[in-house]
Amino acid sequence: MKKVLSIGLVCFSSLVLAQTKPDGTFVQYVNPFIGTGAVDKNSLSGSNFPGSTVPFGFVQLSPDTRDAPDDPASGYDYNDKTIVGFSHNHLSGTGVADLFDVLMMPTTGDVKFNAGTPDKPHSGYSSAFSHKEETARPGYYQVMLKDYNINAELTSTSHVGLHRYTFPQNAQSHIIIDMDHSLDKKRGYWSCKIIGAEIRVVDDHTIEGYRILSGWAKLRKIYFHAEFSKPFISTVLASGGKTYPDLTIINGSNLKAALNFNTADKEQIMVKVGLSPVSTENARMNIKAELPGWDFNATSSQSSAQWEKELSKIKIDGTLEQKQIFYTGLYHAFTQPNNMADVNGDYQATDLSIANAPDKTHYSTFSLWDTYRAAHPLYTLIQPEKTTAFINSMMRQYDSYGYLPIWQLWGDENYCMIGNHAIPVIVDAALKGIPGFNVEKAYAAIKGSSLTDHPGSPFTAWAKYQYIPEDVESQSVSITLEVAYDDWCVAQLAKKLGKDEDYDLFIKRSEFYKNLYNTKTGFFQAKLKDGSWQEPFNPQSYGGNGGSPYTEANAWQYFWYVPQNVSGLIGLVGGNTAFNQKLDTFFTLRDKPGEVNGNASGFIGQYAHGNEPSHHITYLYDFSGQPWKTQFYVAKVLNELYNNSSSGYSGNEDCGQMSSWYTFSSMGFYPVNPANGVYAIGSPILKHAEISLGGGKTFTMDAKNVGKNNCYIQSVKLNGKAYGKTYITQNDIADGGKLEFVMGSKPNKNWGTKPTDVPLAWGY
Amino acid sequence: MKKVLSIGLVCFSSLVLAQTKPDGTFVQYVNPFIGTGAVDKNSLSGSNFPGSTVPFGFVQLSPDTRDAPDDPASGYDYNDKTIVGFSHNHLSGTGVADLFDVLMMPTTGDVKFNAGTPDKPHSGYSSAFSHKEETARPGYYQVMLKDYNINAELTSTSHVGLHRYTFPQNAQSHIIIDMDHSLDKKRGYWSCKIIGAEIRVVDDHTIEGYRILSGWAKLRKIYFHAEFSKPFISTVLASGGKTYPDLTIINGSNLKAALNFNTADKEQIMVKVGLSPVSTENARMNIKAELPGWDFNATSSQSSAQWEKELSKIKIDGTLEQKQIFYTGLYHAFTQPNNMADVNGDYQATDLSIANAPDKTHYSTFSLWDTYRAAHPLYTLIQPEKTTAFINSMMRQYDSYGYLPIWQLWGDENYCMIGNHAIPVIVDAALKGIPGFNVEKAYAAIKGSSLTDHPGSPFTAWAKYQYIPEDVESQSVSITLEVAYDDWCVAQLAKKLGKDEDYDLFIKRSEFYKNLYNTKTGFFQAKLKDGSWQEPFNPQSYGGNGGSPYTEANAWQYFWYVPQNVSGLIGLVGGNTAFNQKLDTFFTLRDKPGEVNGNASGFIGQYAHGNEPSHHITYLYDFSGQPWKTQFYVAKVLNELYNNSSSGYSGNEDCGQMSSWYTFSSMGFYPVNPANGVYAIGSPILKHAEISLGGGKTFTMDAKNVGKNNCYIQSVKLNGKAYGKTYITQNDIADGGKLEFVMGSKPNKNWGTKPTDVPLAWGY
Repeated sequence: MKKVLSIGLVCFSSLVLAQTKPDGTFVQYVNPFIGTGAVDKNSLSGSNFPGSTVPFGFVQLSPDTRDAPDDPASGYDYNDKTIVGFSHNHLSGTGVADLFDVLMMPTTGDVKFNAGTPDKPHSGYSSAFSHKEETARPGYYQVMLKDYNINAELTSTSHVGLHRYTFPQNAQSHIIIDMDHSLDKKRGYWSCKIIGAEIRVVDDHTIEGYRILSGWAKLRKIYFHAEFSKPFISTVLASGGKTYPDLTIINGSNLKAALNFNTADKEQIMVKVGLSPVSTENARMNIKAELPGWDFNATSSQSSAQWEKELSKIKIDGTLEQKQIFYTGLYHAFTQPNNMADVNGDYQATDLSIANAPDKTHYSTFSLWDTYRAAHPLYTLIQPEKTTAFINSMMRQYDSYGYLPIWQLWGDENYCMIGNHAIPVIVDAALKGIPGFNVEKAYAAIKGSSLTDHPGSPFTAWAKYQYIPEDVESQSVSITLEVAYDDWCVAQLAKKLGKDEDYDLFIKRSEFYKNLYNTKTGFFQAKLKDGSWQEPFNPQSYGGNGGSPYTEANAWQYFWYVPQNVSGLIGLVGGNTAFNQKLDTFFTLRDKPGEVNGNASGFIGQYAHGNEPSHHITYLYDFSGQPWKTQFYVAKVLNELYNNSSSGYSGNEDCGQMSSWYTFSSMGFYPVNPANGVYAIGSPILKHAEISLGGGKTFTMDAKNVGKNNCYIQSVKLNGKAYGKTYITQNDIADGGKLEFVMGSKPNKNWGTKPTDVPLAWGY
Repeated sequence: MKKVLSIGLVCFSSLVLAQTKPDGTFVQYVNPFIGTGAVDKNSLSGSNFPGSTVPFGFVQLSPDTRDAPDDPASGYDYNDKTIVGFSHNHLSGTGVADLFDVLMMPTTGDVKFNAGTPDKPHSGYSSAFSHKEETARPGYYQVMLKDYNINAELTSTSHVGLHRYTFPQNAQSHIIIDMDHSLDKKRGYWSCKIIGAEIRVVDDHTIEGYRILSGWAKLRKIYFHAEFSKPFISTVLASGGKTYPDLTIINGSNLKAALNFNTADKEQIMVKVGLSPVSTENARMNIKAELPGWDFNATSSQSSAQWEKELSKIKIDGTLEQKQIFYTGLYHAFTQPNNMADVNGDYQATDLSIANAPDKTHYSTFSLWDTYRAAHPLYTLIQPEKTTAFINSMMRQYDSYGYLPIWQLWGDENYCMIGNHAIPVIVDAALKGIPGFNVEKAYAAIKGSSLTDHPGSPFTAWAKYQYIPEDVESQSVSITLEVAYDDWCVAQLAKKLGKDEDYDLFIKRSEFYKNLYNTKTGFFQAKLKDGSWQEPFNPQSYGGNGGSPYTEANAWQYFWYVPQNVSGLIGLVGGNTAFNQKLDTFFTLRDKPGEVNGNASGFIGQYAHGNEPSHHITYLYDFSGQPWKTQFYVAKVLNELYNNSSSGYSGNEDCGQMSSWYTFSSMGFYPVNPANGVYAIGSPILKHAEISLGGGKTFTMDAKNVGKNNCYIQSVKLNGKAYGKTYITQNDIADGGKLEFVMGSKPNKNWGTKPTDVPLAWGY
């Protein structure tokens, strides 16, 4: 579990992360080490990986610093001293580990098939390394493996990893392949098990194979085809404890291989590894399509150029650190969802059959409980074509599985977290007019996913009790609040499509949150089936992922989750004054009970920026007449809970959500309700930002007098005219336009404080 | 494990098995209850199932009498009193259970989702039944479910099961679907686990779904599409302990469904269930192709007609019991291998990718350690086209997995048993000139499978030590003997293809059996790597499937396993006299140690007809000048260790091998070496047999004076000419011809006793 980061411990040390500057206006600011490791024992990382990937690509070729990665889930901890090897796919910022397929490690000397332990790295094939001899930038990773004096460089295309190893002179040079490297198989609750695997020596410069395994994704099949730039002299295959020199094929569950070379000093050997979730034939095909040659530098440049193109969609001006955080954030946001389809469109569907996507893309890694909040709204602005493809991919789960994704990994539903937050993603895109998907069919999927009982979503009980009873389904307060929000989204699309009966049903359900409000305590609390409140109740007591009414949070943090009707929430507590007092208490109440959920971190009072339930809360003063407090806390989070070190995030980066909060907030606005086309205004910290919206349209933000002490808005202009509202709308952005701020060190309490300045609560 | 059947307990009771006579000259003799259950506690069954299947079909729709079938592996025990339901696929005669997919059970009254226990059947959905109200014949099964007064009838096409349930008048009639019914999940060593499953209510008369599970087959995906002839009024889906009325889709690992009907008295409801290992779409397609309509009787007749066509390939005359045993035996031999390809040719390859077979067939269920002995030689004679398809299917494992099948289930290798007995199957077919497969490519597969180390086949040690050391691989004596035989087969095909170097290598390896012959004890015994004999040694001590040098047998039973060079074996013991004495002892030595392997049964002295290592041994007197003893023991086995009761086999029927022994032996000859084109003559018990060889050719056998007391050959004619050899050859059969025996009650010790009469030891 994560260690708690108290606000006083946030580290702004200018840790110099090894990184050479690449060409490119924007990629130069990306530092893939941000989020890769806590700088001290009490700080937090983002659980990101530093290796090579292309935007939304299938392959993430990156070093693993542990043999059986668990925490951080990315496999790489900046604090570790050894590298185990380079595996081909990784999750970015998640709380749970998986993937790590087809690990390769160059070595010299005696062949070792075990990885070694952190305590005794020299007992296995792993190597010591130093950050002084390590580089990472988009499309490139390099590290000197000290034990072997081997310089390892990595780059990648969407489906292919390319390794370049510079060996010393040695008659016993090797490349080890470890097909048993996986998330910790001893962690019983993910049941990680390798069901079958194969390594085949096709010829003296080609290896193929696969492994089939269960883990966080309940069944993954990963096939690979690897070509080496130099023929190997000999091979040793291993299964379990037994080794087989010069065997050409091996099947089993615990497989390894050593490919042996005689290398001259500084001799470079390259390996390109095509991957596919469908077949070795497809893995070969993916190489043929994406990386037929052997030009490492050109491949790395092309990968970098892909990033440059994507990052250029928002041009900013700010401090160097702000640029590094901002562009690394976009980089993290575009690292997934991942295209699981092979170049011919073949993919593994949610029902584990093999299907084909006519558009050659099938995206997965949908960490929706996190990413529906800000990452997907960001994609609608600067990745509209990808948004279409994401929705069409999610719709395929509906087709084969009966409901939209909750947490989809490798095309497979793992039911991690709560709610059905594909709904706000799709509704937001539909209401914003993103083209390329069938809105009527999408509505049918949304409605079906909102009526069909499924794990974590007991809709029969929802209809019957008008809240989720804790004795029907645990995490009941969080589910009640989040499902009410999802229902509001369904209602909006129903309204747009003229489905009045559906609108009436779902808008009514969207108000069920009120049924768990306890006027005596002033909190949303769990009720049982019999209508009684669950006792005892402590608003600071944390839940995790079951066994408590609150999901990875406490009642304080979940109190604010009514983004569909903030005015309704304000009404529950008795008006703006009481609401503002409650917010003030929330941001200042520092007592914490002994047991804090490991995901809650980055505290400001009870506010925990390190986990998603808090992400909209700083903006709520906008709704209750005290926008300067929004400005204060937003700026505080931007300035104090993000930095450009390896522990640059105050909690898991969560597949782009933590970054997307920064992306929006640093420009001065944020989608409190991710599906109503309204962005609450916070506190811009960037001097300038230009969002390329496609079709030649650009939305520009300028802020005068920005600076750490100037968090307060003095005045605003929209398209040249004075602007007093604490929000802008999607139309303001989509039409192209110009938003100008003047900042200062003291609040302007006249700005944005009229009742009519409050962000729209009810959509477009 | 199986109970031991001593010879004195063999039951010839004319147990009347419920069976109505179908139309058809040959199908009328098939009694699917043969082999379905021991008639008393000390007797044995064949582990066969009584339900409906078509020759080599994908679906075996049959009743299961246990909730978590284990032993018998077929799921049905004739001694059980309750039926749990009807699942769609079953293994016939194996020692290990698997499959049992998509169980359906019609019920009335309250819905129950658990099956109940044998002790308390009424606690669940299972029902009592009586053999008096049960019928089985090819393509048809019927049983009255007493608890519900429901008559259930089953028939099938290759990919579709068709159920017809005749309900009583009841407003609470149901069809239960149990997707959690599987081999015993508590049996840790097969690791049976349902990874994922789905049930979807498509409309009021259609259900679809799938399950993905590991078991004996390490990963199976089974998709189904079920259509009902009458709309159901309502449904209840269940996951784990929770039930969901009128839910349309459910995903999970422990899924059930109840479909509810209001039935009139005698109202019939039909269900047709299409199955596919690839997708629900393919399952639908399989129904559309094979069973678009609803004519139960016509479907059953067509299934029966398919059997009639296949059974007519051998026409016999004999007693009614002989005909019943004979044709039921052919029925069991043709129950598998099973076509795992959908009607469009899609199948799951051994590397668990999805592939397509151009010929629309991909056969699996290769129990090769059993079936290479007699079942595959039988297929070469009367199923030559299928033999081609079997070989092409096995070659696909070589392509994707690196070596030929050992025990292939559901297209997947499970490494059950020892040796690489796809080799004799392919070599036999190649040498017999079966067309339709690439012999050069097949040879490459055979050679590769004989040189590549793989589980159970440590060929590096084989080359180094010239025997398998027990401290390298357990079951070393059995593996040494069987691999030596496989090597002899490789040598024969090498010779035919002009690969002289290969011939020299493999013919040398085929003699390695001698290296484990201990002249001091007169047995094949385990050696260790250091060349010493493993001690202690007891020739009657049994091994199982590891931990002993002998596989499911003892040293006595494995002593005789040199079918490639019986004269060499005779030479080892010092000539015919010593050899015959050893055989005499073998057939009469009745002492058994306390612990007999459960697969050893059907004893005559140390001879155990219930398991395959003994199957050729009765014929060995033919090689050593005392063919009348072969005749005696062959007739004894035919007459005493086969019958037409539910315990008609003296051990597991083993996917056709036990039956094929009978098929050959009852006609008077048997392939002691399954790949040398030589059939040793035993003791015919049938009056007449005609084998249709295709192309208008027929081989005929006639035997005068057959009878239980007339087991001895008096004289033989081949094609009208007196014939003194104790063998016939493949050419004698393949050319068409006529073999005539005159039998009598006393041995004719002048027949077949010249040295030149001995079966050829060295092939064609």
